[in-house]
Amino acid sequence: MLETMFNNVKERSPLVHNITNYVTVNDCANILLACGASPIMADDAAEVAEITAVCDGLSINIGTLSRRTTDSMLIAGAKSNEMNHPVVLDPVGDGVSKVRTDTALKLVHDIRLSAIRGNISEIKMLASGSGSVNGVDAGKTDFVTNDKLDSVISLAKAFSDSTGAIIAITGEIDIVASSEKAYINKNGCSYMTNVTGTGCMLSALTCAFISANPDNPLEATAAAVIEMGLAGEIAKQRMRDLDGSGSFRTYLIDAVSNMTAAELVKGAKYEVR
Amino acid sequence: MLETMFNNVKERSPLVHNITNYVTVNDCANILLACGASPIMADDAAEVAEITAVCDGLSINIGTLSRRTTDSMLIAGAKSNEMNHPVVLDPVGDGVSKVRTDTALKLVHDIRLSAIRGNISEIKMLASGSGSVNGVDAGKTDFVTNDKLDSVISLAKAFSDSTGAIIAITGEIDIVASSEKAYINKNGCSYMTNVTGTGCMLSALTCAFISANPDNPLEATAAAVIEMGLAGEIAKQRMRDLDGSGSFRTYLIDAVSNMTAAELVKGAKYEVR
Amino acid sequence: MLETMFNNVKERSPLVHNITNYVTVNDCANILLACGASPIMADDAAEVAEITAVCDGLSINIGTLSRRTTDSMLIAGAKSNEMNHPVVLDPVGDGVSKVRTDTALKLVHDIRLSAIRGNISEIKMLASGSGSVNGVDAGKTDFVTNDKLDSVISLAKAFSDSTGAIIAITGEIDIVASSEKAYINKNGCSYMTNVTGTGCMLSALTCAFISANPDNPLEATAAAVIEMGLAGEIAKQRMRDLDGSGSFRTYLIDAVSNMTAAELVKGAKYEVR
Repeated sequence: MLETMFNNVKERSPLVHNITNYVTVNDCANILLACGASPIMADDAAEVAEITAVCDGLSINIGTLSRRTTDSMLIAGAKSNEMNHPVVLDPVGDGVSKVRTDTALKLVHDIRLSAIRGNISEIKMLASGSGSVNGVDAGKTDFVTNDKLDSVISLAKAFSDSTGAIIAITGEIDIVASSEKAYINKNGCSYMTNVTGTGCMLSALTCAFISANPDNPLEATAAAVIEMGLAGEIAKQRMRDLDGSGSFRTYLIDAVSNMTAAELVKGAKYEVR
Repeated sequence: MLETMFNNVKERSPLVHNITNYVTVNDCANILLACGASPIMADDAAEVAEITAVCDGLSINIGTLSRRTTDSMLIAGAKSNEMNHPVVLDPVGDGVSKVRTDTALKLVHDIRLSAIRGNISEIKMLASGSGSVNGVDAGKTDFVTNDKLDSVISLAKAFSDSTGAIIAITGEIDIVASSEKAYINKNGCSYMTNVTGTGCMLSALTCAFISANPDNPLEATAAAVIEMGLAGEIAKQRMRDLDGSGSFRTYLIDAVSNMTAAELVKGAKYEVR
Repeated sequence: MLETMFNNVKERSPLVHNITNYVTVNDCANILLACGASPIMADDAAEVAEITAVCDGLSINIGTLSRRTTDSMLIAGAKSNEMNHPVVLDPVGDGVSKVRTDTALKLVHDIRLSAIRGNISEIKMLASGSGSVNGVDAGKTDFVTNDKLDSVISLAKAFSDSTGAIIAITGEIDIVASSEKAYINKNGCSYMTNVTGTGCMLSALTCAFISANPDNPLEATAAAVIEMGLAGEIAKQRMRDLDGSGSFRTYLIDAVSNMTAAELVKGAKYEVR
């Protein structure tokens, strides 16, 4: 499974249209190149439909939302839906403000999404209208621990059922679920929270994987989540002496750019429920 | 003093709202994470009041100003003032254009600021309406040399007195002043001018330090300035062989992320006047 | 030739005004500092004329165009023309959308440009209204191979003749042409396509070189193109073990920041036709 998903990204080199925030946009472009995809960033309402039409997938991220870019997301989303291109949503920080929650809910309502990736607080807020947000990070009371795992899997499957999208809840334990099946993944390391954009990068990566594997969105999303987590582990193991979060960020992109299918298969730590 | 300021950032992990430029925004987010704080970037008028309300401090920076984000700064600033949250201003390049000078002056007038951090030209322009700006860098005739130090300290104290904000003038010699007391700091290295964003990062760091130490804005600002300068020294000493400004930027963030209170206390080079 | 162009950048330290995209803007600022120039980024219509007036050159890039920044490019371009400052255009992805093509054509029409730098597809589209674009990358059928070289040189010279701008077409083989003379350069390495922004960075670098050498735009552009290619080779050679595209990006900026005139002259691989 992982090998096929991974190799299809390298071979098909999907072109991914990103309408995203200006904080981590450069990292998103570089992680897409690192995995074998191609990025294009364009957010103007006058061109997004045309841009999306020549791409293989659309990645939308509300990290620094504005009315201008939200309109563009809706236009691009409609066009992508019309062309049956995958659309991935990262509802960054939904719940922190009314406009952010409303925007995320509207995007979920108006666009047929292939996947939604967020932390547990963001997904809970979207799915059930509540969650303990802490800025753009998950609230501590929401953390996915082993004893909460079953209920989070149920929530993810139910939310997938109601939206038709694959639901990826990432954190110390990652859950990637369709309405019927969930991948539980334990790759990754806590140091990843020390750099901005690991979530945004993973959402972009997810879009690349689904774009290259449109018939297998669940497995494609799981593969992207596993690759990102494994890259975090590789980056952490590589740290020496004076290396800190600056070097870690570089090593993370290095790890994705050098990842092989064999390495991914060997390093993966997941189970299916 | 330094130890308390530093440890409070690590322990309280303040959430800092940034309305800033799109050039160095990623570096600002990463330096906040590196020091132990959490960043959130949001600049839309429809949500900034709500965002600021859940944060511990607000950092505003006019590096790539526009009418849209200036309005958001004013809204967020008013809300922060209402909630008694600290607000830090970085008046990037004020003096380079009329709108930039007017915007900086309006922000100083309309918002009760906890600190203002800039280079000597930016601060002179704000304080007295004159300065020899050179783009976003200080003009050479303004450089703070030892023989000009007394007059710059007087300027900083007077400007602090009129605004109520701590004034941080950074460069080869840094001056951090309240109306009655000034820290004179000689940490840092000239190589820091070879990467963009060291000033912006320091302003964000200052906001984190004041947010975690709201009762001691002078000492908090001094500690942030000293940490950034010391990180620059550590980064420079680490450079080898083929390392240049790209590696230096990575090492700078590494140095902040690995800094300990003991290291900060030992490396600090300041006096009080 | 190369030595003079290079040294003039270091000695004159031109201030370059950039109206550019938010994806690679940080890299553009850092490459300008690395080469010895100073960057200022400002895109608001209310201030761009004043900003450009105090700068030595203007670099415009439509990577993430919007109506707001396009208007600013036209205002700044007019002011730069009035003051005889060089203006460099990077028509990122023109041809991908109607508004992008129209914007690029309008900028070429309304502003007297010193240089236009793009990949072969972008330049063909601008020059002749056709090209096989692939997002923001050149289409494969357009790649400049040795047997197509003569026709591409002719196209570049003719386009230079009609616009008055130096035309830089970069890729595996780079062509830098005035209406009468072309530099054919083979510096660079294919790994450069693994990081975003190498084209944008080169356009900014080109603006710095022309700003410091206003009487020699052809040689200045050729020198910038050669420096960037050589920096790519140096960065690639430096890669070890676990290094990937993240490290390569850092090494690229390092290489520009450490480049010497002697190194540039020694490493250059060009001919003149």
